[in-house]
Amino acid sequence: MLIDKINQPADLKTLSANELNNLAEEIRLGIINRTSKIGGHVGSNLGLVECTIAMHFVFDSPKDKIVFDVSHQCYTHKILTGRKDGFFDEDKYSTISGYTTTAESEHDHFCVGHTSTSISLATGLCLGRDLLKENYNVIAVIGDGSLSGGEALEGLDFAGEYKNNLIIVANDNQMSISDNHGGIYKNLKLLRETNGKAEQNFFKDLGLEYKFVENGNDISSLINAFLQVKDTTCPTVVHICTQKGKGYMPAESDKERWHFHAPFNIETAEDSSQAPYGFVQYARDLLIERINSNDKITILCAGTPGAIGFFAEYREKVEGRFIDVGIAEEHAVALASGMAKAGTKPIFCVQSSFLQRCYDQLLQDLCLNNNPAVIIVYSSGIYPMRDATHMGVFDIAYTSSIPNLTYLCPTNASEFKDCLDFAINQNSSPVMIRLPMTKFVQGDSAIDFTKKSYQIVNSGSEVAFIGLGNHFEITKKSADLLLEKNGINATLINALYADFVDEKTLDELVQNHRYFVVVEDGILQGGFSQKVSAYLSKHGAKTLCYGYKKEFMDRFNLKEKLAENRISEDLIIEDLLSIISK
Amino acid sequence: MLIDKINQPADLKTLSANELNNLAEEIRLGIINRTSKIGGHVGSNLGLVECTIAMHFVFDSPKDKIVFDVSHQCYTHKILTGRKDGFFDEDKYSTISGYTTTAESEHDHFCVGHTSTSISLATGLCLGRDLLKENYNVIAVIGDGSLSGGEALEGLDFAGEYKNNLIIVANDNQMSISDNHGGIYKNLKLLRETNGKAEQNFFKDLGLEYKFVENGNDISSLINAFLQVKDTTCPTVVHICTQKGKGYMPAESDKERWHFHAPFNIETAEDSSQAPYGFVQYARDLLIERINSNDKITILCAGTPGAIGFFAEYREKVEGRFIDVGIAEEHAVALASGMAKAGTKPIFCVQSSFLQRCYDQLLQDLCLNNNPAVIIVYSSGIYPMRDATHMGVFDIAYTSSIPNLTYLCPTNASEFKDCLDFAINQNSSPVMIRLPMTKFVQGDSAIDFTKKSYQIVNSGSEVAFIGLGNHFEITKKSADLLLEKNGINATLINALYADFVDEKTLDELVQNHRYFVVVEDGILQGGFSQKVSAYLSKHGAKTLCYGYKKEFMDRFNLKEKLAENRISEDLIIEDLLSIISK
Repeated sequence: MLIDKINQPADLKTLSANELNNLAEEIRLGIINRTSKIGGHVGSNLGLVECTIAMHFVFDSPKDKIVFDVSHQCYTHKILTGRKDGFFDEDKYSTISGYTTTAESEHDHFCVGHTSTSISLATGLCLGRDLLKENYNVIAVIGDGSLSGGEALEGLDFAGEYKNNLIIVANDNQMSISDNHGGIYKNLKLLRETNGKAEQNFFKDLGLEYKFVENGNDISSLINAFLQVKDTTCPTVVHICTQKGKGYMPAESDKERWHFHAPFNIETAEDSSQAPYGFVQYARDLLIERINSNDKITILCAGTPGAIGFFAEYREKVEGRFIDVGIAEEHAVALASGMAKAGTKPIFCVQSSFLQRCYDQLLQDLCLNNNPAVIIVYSSGIYPMRDATHMGVFDIAYTSSIPNLTYLCPTNASEFKDCLDFAINQNSSPVMIRLPMTKFVQGDSAIDFTKKSYQIVNSGSEVAFIGLGNHFEITKKSADLLLEKNGINATLINALYADFVDEKTLDELVQNHRYFVVVEDGILQGGFSQKVSAYLSKHGAKTLCYGYKKEFMDRFNLKEKLAENRISEDLIIEDLLSIISK
Repeated sequence: MLIDKINQPADLKTLSANELNNLAEEIRLGIINRTSKIGGHVGSNLGLVECTIAMHFVFDSPKDKIVFDVSHQCYTHKILTGRKDGFFDEDKYSTISGYTTTAESEHDHFCVGHTSTSISLATGLCLGRDLLKENYNVIAVIGDGSLSGGEALEGLDFAGEYKNNLIIVANDNQMSISDNHGGIYKNLKLLRETNGKAEQNFFKDLGLEYKFVENGNDISSLINAFLQVKDTTCPTVVHICTQKGKGYMPAESDKERWHFHAPFNIETAEDSSQAPYGFVQYARDLLIERINSNDKITILCAGTPGAIGFFAEYREKVEGRFIDVGIAEEHAVALASGMAKAGTKPIFCVQSSFLQRCYDQLLQDLCLNNNPAVIIVYSSGIYPMRDATHMGVFDIAYTSSIPNLTYLCPTNASEFKDCLDFAINQNSSPVMIRLPMTKFVQGDSAIDFTKKSYQIVNSGSEVAFIGLGNHFEITKKSADLLLEKNGINATLINALYADFVDEKTLDELVQNHRYFVVVEDGILQGGFSQKVSAYLSKHGAKTLCYGYKKEFMDRFNLKEKLAENRISEDLIIEDLLSIISK
């Protein structure tokens, strides 16, 4: 195998054209094998194999610096820069992250997982290089939908006036994660159809040089193009046309479903993850029902319909009432505000980690205007994700400070339904709902939203447990354990509202409760429990707050991470008894 | 006066061309008079008088909906829609806000103060209109620098695929707040020079229709253009070329300084606000010193150099080391991360309210990568601003949850200098510094940053006062008052770190202090005091937290607002004594 000889990019440079092509096929197998076992970004990586080989053939990494946008397409880069074991040795798959990460290699310059950042980060490297009078190439690799994000567009606009070496590889695979959306993709299409020669050229408009590579899966064309732009002293876009999923038939034919894929059987292409029915599917089916019975509802999403369960066949069921704005989260929130202002009911479905891109739009465009749009937050808390870049643990904390925003955290399907119907049927303010991310539980609820209050599940005394959202279950188990161990019949509360300190309920509780335990599935600092604790503090009640310490959690063991933060019924009761006994 | 007859837009429609021109001059005087007395956006509004008259002549507001970007150029709109008293009756100047606000009029569709939001908000109205099968025009008025913001570019990209009525008036006054920055402005220049005929057309390339108006201060040309696009069923950009500051000579000749201006003498154009030397000037002079002695420093700003004291003559002093990226805050943070990664020391100077646009870039691009860039936060807290859209009261709360970020809140010039030098000289993590916003105090400090800890100003017992940043002074006065009134020698602490709970210091204090008072200049929910309170709570210490309740504060009386939140030495001591006596 050729791959056996490749331990660093320099090893590529002695290979013949034929050998490079053969190496590409070997790499492809490594990618397919790894993703079939542990899941990953199949299509994105298969499309970029040749481009990555050509980049490392032409440029001298890490002196020349390649910055991957989103970085979910960095597998070939990792294979070529000393990390092939993560793809060719099954025992070591899990030692290598699916994203660029500075801790792994000097060839990775940034930890990246969100889209549209590469041009700005790369331009930063360029300005630093210029100031220090150093000399190297900086290459930003963007595409796969990222071009429509505001940060990328700001970066392109800035690069249009920059006057030294910067190479922007625009990987045009005719796809975002799902279909492409936005006018810029019409221009890419025109450029493809004219072999890059159309006068109408978005990149040139901004002042950038432009080069077109018709076959972005042909190594020699790519090498030729990169040699032409290497060491140039002006920013250049190299527009390469690639085939997403190339080399694995199922991924070539259903590009959306194979952008990211759970573990699968290579022969049959069947999903082998055995993922059970969960809240994402429940929410999707419920949303389809609600759309069909309410003319005013539109579902909005920002480039990730699959992540919210809306693959093509489901989008078709609500024709015209599902709008994918492409990767443009800021626009999505402002759009929702406008649609609500106009008298309709937009429901923006977004992953917690990506909602971070809209703090100001939430605050100003939506909440200052108090328009009654609905936001459903997916992939929140500690359960669904393991990469630092995608952890949904910040949303409760950073939305804490936003006036007019109701943030509901239901604990089961029935409560989610109640919350959604409340959000749809009210018109007084924006409502955000955190979709549960635990194992699917149907539940049986009938929440009375006429009074905004915590839900009292059990009335006891001495100790009150207050659980929020995904961690309500652990809170409940803690109360049960306390009863079992010490005979204390504690009060148990399902807080439901992440944004709200229920002063009335707390004032009552403080009369016959000396100890409070608050548990949330998010970062402690700035979060829900600290709000409750601060309110109780003036009464001198002792409160234990449980959430995560402020850190970036990356590729952790769930059980260990929970234990580190003392989130389990055993540890909580241990802590509680130690203060009670004092 | 013609203006006497204008009480609503319909009153315009009977005026002759000549009368419309005369009306424009009357309005101009109103704008100059008002801003000369209470300050405001002089240049931006003077340039848009004719366009606004033409819009209200052609369209039927509020049925047709005009959405102003940033909305600091809405004065003529307000004058024409029933609010002329705010411009022509000196006693009523303060009754009308300088921004569009839904509470004031049905002609204002959104509360807006941040840039780059209009296209997305307007498109939201369009989609809502379409869903309800209604029929009206939606007009977004953008320009004056806003086009380079990511949200605007996302909006344009989306609009390029939209298929019904949307009119985007791009006000091209050849200026941002300061000079224009970014490649898009090169294209606008080309379009101006070719009378809109150049093949290279950024808007057309995104799929938008395009119309050029050479003289955007000529009412009849504008009316003609608007009549052509009224009721059309595709999105169209109307590119109008206007003169910023038109009609007031000083504002025409120094566009940057007159974008916004403090009260001034109309005859002499002299500033009559008598603003004293403050922290902004101090920081600017210090930054210039540091740049001159350190080759690695670059100052970054995002479109607002004047707000950080760097008018043209100061930028010239640090030639090439001051980079205005234009209105593109997300790009600025990512750029800073890249520059720091490359081994240099970028210092991004940004207003608190605008930093809100970069939560995710702070979290992911900067702090996850732990690159040692410096951010200086201006216009923070309650003192500098009075408009809901510009209040800098959220930063402590929403950055609470960001790992790796040190956020320093010095209380005087000397401490600011210590903080800045620490931030410049360390290379281990990003450091953010909140520039003090109180009356200028020189101070005399020598902070020891080798140990990260709160600063103990006075050691006492029983009660500990912990003050942060701008409100340290009130905390100190409270301690003094307590001593005076009750003879209690309280401990006084200058917290310095907004991001940090100093557990060691608190553990010591809790031994001989039963009551804690924490005061910060920001929203309470998610803020600094709640973190301290939550930590103390497990010890059963009673803590009083002072900051602002979660609300949008708009055009308030400072003293009343502080009192409402019980932030004064008298009220704090009153609260404290009431719990001590319990």
